[in-house]
Amino acid sequence: MPEEPELALNVLAERYASPALRRLWSQRGRVVLERRLWIAVLKAQRDLGLAVPQEAINAYERSAEQVDLDSIARRERITRHDVKARIEEFCARAGWEHIHKGMTSRDLTENVEQLQVHRSLLHVRDRAVAALAILSRRAKELRDQVITARTHNVAAQVTTMGKRLAMFGEELLRGFETIERLAAHYPVRGLQGAVGTQLDQLNLFENDPARVRDLEDRVLHHLGIARHWVNTGQVYPRSLDFEVVAALVQLASGPASLAKTLRLMAGHDLASEGFAPGQTGSSAMPHKRNSRSCERIQGFHTLLKGYLSMAAGLAGDQWNEGDVSCSVVRRVMLPDSFFAIDGLFETFLTVLGQFEVFPAVIDAEIERCLPFLLSTSFLMEAVKRGAGRESAHKTVKEHALAAAADLREGKAGSPTLLDRLAADPRLELDPDTLRRIMEEGRTNTGNAGPQVDAFCEAVEAIIAAHPEAAAYRGEAIL
Amino acid sequence: MPEEPELALNVLAERYASPALRRLWSQRGRVVLERRLWIAVLKAQRDLGLAVPQEAINAYERSAEQVDLDSIARRERITRHDVKARIEEFCARAGWEHIHKGMTSRDLTENVEQLQVHRSLLHVRDRAVAALAILSRRAKELRDQVITARTHNVAAQVTTMGKRLAMFGEELLRGFETIERLAAHYPVRGLQGAVGTQLDQLNLFENDPARVRDLEDRVLHHLGIARHWVNTGQVYPRSLDFEVVAALVQLASGPASLAKTLRLMAGHDLASEGFAPGQTGSSAMPHKRNSRSCERIQGFHTLLKGYLSMAAGLAGDQWNEGDVSCSVVRRVMLPDSFFAIDGLFETFLTVLGQFEVFPAVIDAEIERCLPFLLSTSFLMEAVKRGAGRESAHKTVKEHALAAAADLREGKAGSPTLLDRLAADPRLELDPDTLRRIMEEGRTNTGNAGPQVDAFCEAVEAIIAAHPEAAAYRGEAIL
Amino acid sequence: MPEEPELALNVLAERYASPALRRLWSQRGRVVLERRLWIAVLKAQRDLGLAVPQEAINAYERSAEQVDLDSIARRERITRHDVKARIEEFCARAGWEHIHKGMTSRDLTENVEQLQVHRSLLHVRDRAVAALAILSRRAKELRDQVITARTHNVAAQVTTMGKRLAMFGEELLRGFETIERLAAHYPVRGLQGAVGTQLDQLNLFENDPARVRDLEDRVLHHLGIARHWVNTGQVYPRSLDFEVVAALVQLASGPASLAKTLRLMAGHDLASEGFAPGQTGSSAMPHKRNSRSCERIQGFHTLLKGYLSMAAGLAGDQWNEGDVSCSVVRRVMLPDSFFAIDGLFETFLTVLGQFEVFPAVIDAEIERCLPFLLSTSFLMEAVKRGAGRESAHKTVKEHALAAAADLREGKAGSPTLLDRLAADPRLELDPDTLRRIMEEGRTNTGNAGPQVDAFCEAVEAIIAAHPEAAAYRGEAIL
Amino acid sequence: MPEEPELALNVLAERYASPALRRLWSQRGRVVLERRLWIAVLKAQRDLGLAVPQEAINAYERSAEQVDLDSIARRERITRHDVKARIEEFCARAGWEHIHKGMTSRDLTENVEQLQVHRSLLHVRDRAVAALAILSRRAKELRDQVITARTHNVAAQVTTMGKRLAMFGEELLRGFETIERLAAHYPVRGLQGAVGTQLDQLNLFENDPARVRDLEDRVLHHLGIARHWVNTGQVYPRSLDFEVVAALVQLASGPASLAKTLRLMAGHDLASEGFAPGQTGSSAMPHKRNSRSCERIQGFHTLLKGYLSMAAGLAGDQWNEGDVSCSVVRRVMLPDSFFAIDGLFETFLTVLGQFEVFPAVIDAEIERCLPFLLSTSFLMEAVKRGAGRESAHKTVKEHALAAAADLREGKAGSPTLLDRLAADPRLELDPDTLRRIMEEGRTNTGNAGPQVDAFCEAVEAIIAAHPEAAAYRGEAIL
Repeated sequence: MPEEPELALNVLAERYASPALRRLWSQRGRVVLERRLWIAVLKAQRDLGLAVPQEAINAYERSAEQVDLDSIARRERITRHDVKARIEEFCARAGWEHIHKGMTSRDLTENVEQLQVHRSLLHVRDRAVAALAILSRRAKELRDQVITARTHNVAAQVTTMGKRLAMFGEELLRGFETIERLAAHYPVRGLQGAVGTQLDQLNLFENDPARVRDLEDRVLHHLGIARHWVNTGQVYPRSLDFEVVAALVQLASGPASLAKTLRLMAGHDLASEGFAPGQTGSSAMPHKRNSRSCERIQGFHTLLKGYLSMAAGLAGDQWNEGDVSCSVVRRVMLPDSFFAIDGLFETFLTVLGQFEVFPAVIDAEIERCLPFLLSTSFLMEAVKRGAGRESAHKTVKEHALAAAADLREGKAGSPTLLDRLAADPRLELDPDTLRRIMEEGRTNTGNAGPQVDAFCEAVEAIIAAHPEAAAYRGEAIL
Repeated sequence: MPEEPELALNVLAERYASPALRRLWSQRGRVVLERRLWIAVLKAQRDLGLAVPQEAINAYERSAEQVDLDSIARRERITRHDVKARIEEFCARAGWEHIHKGMTSRDLTENVEQLQVHRSLLHVRDRAVAALAILSRRAKELRDQVITARTHNVAAQVTTMGKRLAMFGEELLRGFETIERLAAHYPVRGLQGAVGTQLDQLNLFENDPARVRDLEDRVLHHLGIARHWVNTGQVYPRSLDFEVVAALVQLASGPASLAKTLRLMAGHDLASEGFAPGQTGSSAMPHKRNSRSCERIQGFHTLLKGYLSMAAGLAGDQWNEGDVSCSVVRRVMLPDSFFAIDGLFETFLTVLGQFEVFPAVIDAEIERCLPFLLSTSFLMEAVKRGAGRESAHKTVKEHALAAAADLREGKAGSPTLLDRLAADPRLELDPDTLRRIMEEGRTNTGNAGPQVDAFCEAVEAIIAAHPEAAAYRGEAIL
Repeated sequence: MPEEPELALNVLAERYASPALRRLWSQRGRVVLERRLWIAVLKAQRDLGLAVPQEAINAYERSAEQVDLDSIARRERITRHDVKARIEEFCARAGWEHIHKGMTSRDLTENVEQLQVHRSLLHVRDRAVAALAILSRRAKELRDQVITARTHNVAAQVTTMGKRLAMFGEELLRGFETIERLAAHYPVRGLQGAVGTQLDQLNLFENDPARVRDLEDRVLHHLGIARHWVNTGQVYPRSLDFEVVAALVQLASGPASLAKTLRLMAGHDLASEGFAPGQTGSSAMPHKRNSRSCERIQGFHTLLKGYLSMAAGLAGDQWNEGDVSCSVVRRVMLPDSFFAIDGLFETFLTVLGQFEVFPAVIDAEIERCLPFLLSTSFLMEAVKRGAGRESAHKTVKEHALAAAADLREGKAGSPTLLDRLAADPRLELDPDTLRRIMEEGRTNTGNAGPQVDAFCEAVEAIIAAHPEAAAYRGEAIL
Repeated sequence: MPEEPELALNVLAERYASPALRRLWSQRGRVVLERRLWIAVLKAQRDLGLAVPQEAINAYERSAEQVDLDSIARRERITRHDVKARIEEFCARAGWEHIHKGMTSRDLTENVEQLQVHRSLLHVRDRAVAALAILSRRAKELRDQVITARTHNVAAQVTTMGKRLAMFGEELLRGFETIERLAAHYPVRGLQGAVGTQLDQLNLFENDPARVRDLEDRVLHHLGIARHWVNTGQVYPRSLDFEVVAALVQLASGPASLAKTLRLMAGHDLASEGFAPGQTGSSAMPHKRNSRSCERIQGFHTLLKGYLSMAAGLAGDQWNEGDVSCSVVRRVMLPDSFFAIDGLFETFLTVLGQFEVFPAVIDAEIERCLPFLLSTSFLMEAVKRGAGRESAHKTVKEHALAAAADLREGKAGSPTLLDRLAADPRLELDPDTLRRIMEEGRTNTGNAGPQVDAFCEAVEAIIAAHPEAAAYRGEAIL
């Protein structure tokens, strides 16, 4: 049994997120990213004419991966400045004082954090691709599975399960586009100096703007991010962080709505999110099979909205050339919002792969509801036969409500909706016509099929562009 | 004095927003937009083969602008269904029952609301253009006005007022890009029917998908929005509304940060947001000139974040093919968020046109702070002369803190920062060098000038694309 | 047809809120409240020794109710200061310049707004009382109506409809307590002067703190609010506004959860929120009876959370002795959050009065689910007979999942859960025992009945304390 | 250098929170709390007549502190149910299957989480006491330190630094009251069973409600929380979590406003939050002394508002007797919001202990602003001499604006505000009077002193009630 004081873990990272993302945001990983950036700047400064001994560069390179978090923490307790502590640690380890020249802390941290954000965006984009791929496969598989569509949670008309999936899928598709575009146009801050004027780099390079521009280009190349800000202060505008988290909230919305709908379907026993061998639904009630993964997806969405509120709290709140009232917020909000969306996709991929629909139960529901589901078809037929739309609507409504009331009260032997419609002279709907409409209506899902095809086609193009991402199937979830 | 019961007004619309936006979201205006859409559908149905008497179309067209809100309200108290009330009113007025065939309420309302949103996005984009135009003009005008840059609200280095404006301007520029792209790619729902399968239009057109597609194309053309959803339920995904309000929050962030910074500058008497003739600052204190317009800009930003929370509350919460738990939220959140951003821009345009800077006070501040503002320059010089970066940093810090402490305590005759630096052998900075750095440093704002130029150039391209929008100068504000 | 420019109305106030609240927050009503406060201060100043002509007081009193909003608006366009405009208007109307002496704008506006908030809190408390009264009546009426309880939206055990109502009722009860306590301990700002030191009133009264304290007491007495702040700046802390809106969000939560559950029940046809004669469910589908009022309740809750975000945006953001970055926010957020909660209660009262449950459908559901609902009873019985709890849980789970799978697949003639349990030697549950458990279990709702009684008793005490409020039944809603 | 995969840490807990709170929310600590609860239930069941072998109880007690998190994690990967995994682990370790009888998971987890919340509330209350104690001491120390009060960030009148502290202190005081009351009235869920009817405990005790009530009383006594819910479902209403986090946001508001004001004061060099020996302000600019702790306090406030948004997302969203869409949210939001408020208080205590004011700079500011700060005094004097209030306001305003304009433009030799006022016949203010007002006004801070005393007195009573808590001074912060 361990005796040392227990470390407080990040629940989102440890319980839900995937290893790739955990590594990207690890403390050690971050220190290494910072050191690599310092070395990239140092080499560029050397190449552009600054006197930097090659042995210093070598020494820094040798030490780059040797990360002693405890030693850094000890230094920070004195400096009360995290970057200064990491500079001193790296210099002490290398035995030189050459890094961070002409730089302010934010020349380091903003760029490294943006690198983490950018890579996380690409990671999330890939997860969205994987989700679209499975979703499209399941939509195709269930393209013609007729189900009862519901609006206001009340049986409305028939549709297909494939169409229902494609509907939420198209919402996810738009979220994917937002993420893909954001990743492509994400601007990094670059080396702007203490107040954004690049004064100190210019000082170092004898006020030669060409060399400073060259230096910055090399740093951007090192980061692998093409677009950059020109006018910033000490920090880049925090509305960019907001843009990122807002994109995550948008991306999570399609999955959250699909999850909610699966929870509703499970309540009618029409579908199940799946159940692993050995799984327990309830510690009390042995019979339970709960939609706990779908519920969890909603939980992640709620978390993301909270992180968005944090990001919104920073946007538009810059004082002069910048302050760090954002610091503790970004330390939490940036990684945690990516851990949350990552956990959401891990869960969503599992649900998409494992959910089942139960045709026997589905058919029984359609059987029960069909005359009502066709109320618009009866109405359209009456209209085509010359009835005024609003008058016919009123007549059909009367009969539908009466028939439904009888059903609710369990009245045996009372006239059905079809009986009632056929008997009403205002509608001119004879029993044969009504029977025909019933017959055809049971499987007439309008354009549902072609709509599903259109969705799958759109996804095919994305899979073709990202084949590896599309093949990802998710980790085993808790 | 009026005696009738006072109507509760929308404060944002009546007090802050511009007439154009108020008209767009008016009750009457909306009813007319709906009727025009019904007529467009009716004509298209007729053209595509449905039996619709020409007199009916004529009658609807004659009645389209005759809006009796009270009569509609009376009908709604019976139907408890707003669209049904408006159908009945329009039909009663025209004397026919031909509109809304094959349509569900959302075929009407979603499209009309999206039309309002789309036009509002274009309106807001135009206001952003106007703001960028003035901001660029002021930035050019103040391109070389040296000021004390501050980070953590503490004097840091010198920069220029033009650069400070360009910095917030570039944030606004990104917000503008987001809005422009969103307006260009905003997808409308179209005629999808009760559960999104277009069943009833297909019914009307004998299951001919080509004619239904044609019908939809004509409706989209009527709306003037190019992109549309393929797979929806009764409603389009509410994450699209979220995307819209998030774009507004982002757009407001540059102005909010600039406003905050002007409030800070006014506290040091370095600038003023302007003061109209006859204006009163305080009802108690006659001398006050308050930054109330800048404060108001922040207020609008706070409001927008609240509307975003409402929009986020709807995203990812769709039940099956849709419900209307979003209805009352969207009635409030959509117009009010546009009124808020419009009020923000009216206020921001006023501030941008009227704010002043006070060079005498600015110069006095620089004079007071200059040796400290140049601490990095002293450091860079020491480094260029061979000092270790971290050791030199420590030495300069010691002297700067000591000199600052003397100043705070009002100690006359104590050695200045320059005296102290010159006297320290660890730095090898002789008095002449220090004097030269002081001389040059007073106006050395690094790349600030060229950065401003880059911003103004970017804005020029936007002005060229939107010359009319760029010429707008704002209404007189309260 | 009216031709004048249409006024933008406050949708929440005009469409959903009750007249009492609309009046309280009307423009005219506010101007009168302000004038009454000015006169109260003036009289108190006179009584405490200041030279104020009686004719001036008479003139102000005569003019107090003569409110010309247009004239005030014209003045404000010059002063750009709303209070100064209203001072000038009132003085011009009365022909004297005696009001507002020693006062700053906030001595007026904070107190008047707090009066509006305080009265709104009492109004909302009364609506909560009315809701509790009906809820308690319906809970008593349905105390023994057995229903299928669900957790994770899956059938779990039996409970009663009365218990379900009491469960959400007890949540509302706690919200009510919060509101009642807040109204009782709500502290008003009082006359604190421009920066909170009461300097100008002290000046007027020759630095006599006793007379200033007396003045303030008279003002508090005029306002009818007992508690007041001692240390404020120009404004009272905005975290008090936050406290108010947070209390509203809490209060709305019980109704929102009940509404959500009714929507779910309506989806299974177990209940309906009610349907008025003449009401239309869907403009397309004549058969629809939607839970639109319950959906609307959720909408109000979403709005309230947005207003809370606005209130949170103001809390903890005070600069020095105060600023007005809160002004436009409070103009919107304070009335609109009360309109939203008021609309919520009007809707909730309607739903509570009109909702129906359908015993025939409820019984059919219990019949279908009963063996599963009793899985814990089988388990407890096995445990009592000596089985290990976890082993027995595993065994019952196996059989329950298998039986459920058969049902889902519509397998006729497969063994039932009871058959399976009886046949398993690990459980020692003979068919007679199982039958007895089934027999007793159908109506064994544990402590549900007494729990309902406890809720009703708690509500009785509240009704006794607020009989008039308890009798309110709500306005007709749209 | 460690090689094992790095664990993702909870930044808030590890970097900012105090050890006491970290322990309370640790994984291991939670497992032990659960086991202690199971044992308490088991013993109570035994005492009330259930057959439970003493050896089983002994075995559970022996194993209670032996926590093997890895083994539990392995089990959970099979059960996909965290509580089931922990039941199985505890039973395997003890060698018996007697715990959790008649219980559902939520009978365990809700109560344990509420225990953690309740203890955290008491912890936070104690930190608020400590903060009030120091704040009161500093307010007393600076009771008579005259400073320039600002509204709208513009110099307004004089006040004292003690009063400024008491102002934010009184806001904190109200937050403290909210927390103290909430802790006193916090209702725990208790043993309610799977759907809230206590069915299974009743089953175990032969339907004897008295024994079940007795059982529950013993459990509540074990938890040490007096108040409990009567009507719940599987879960207690999530609006209670909302109430908790809202109380934290309220509590944080006074400190956040004080921190913001200290940041503003530091920008004018009037105050500093303190600077530790060895501390670095900026890695670039050696001279910087930043208000980074005050900025951090604001950051915590922003975080708390985000957690509140998460809590609000759960309130009013209960489906039937409950679901777990709240699960992942509460795992994050509950501990993290307490870690954030704890970090805030650690930082705030440090700032309160270390902040300095600089009288020399303060006096210089008063000197510069005094004639303007006294504009209301000049106005009151003119009014006392018979001038109309509004006319005199206009006259003083004219002169004040003109004098200020001259100062801004650095015009030497132009008439001062006093010169101008004395020369204006409309005011009847002779030079002697003006000089007297200046003389007296420099230190006339109205009721500021007695207001500070009232605050300190209120705090004394709290210190007397919580002497130990009041003595806490905070950990060393990063």
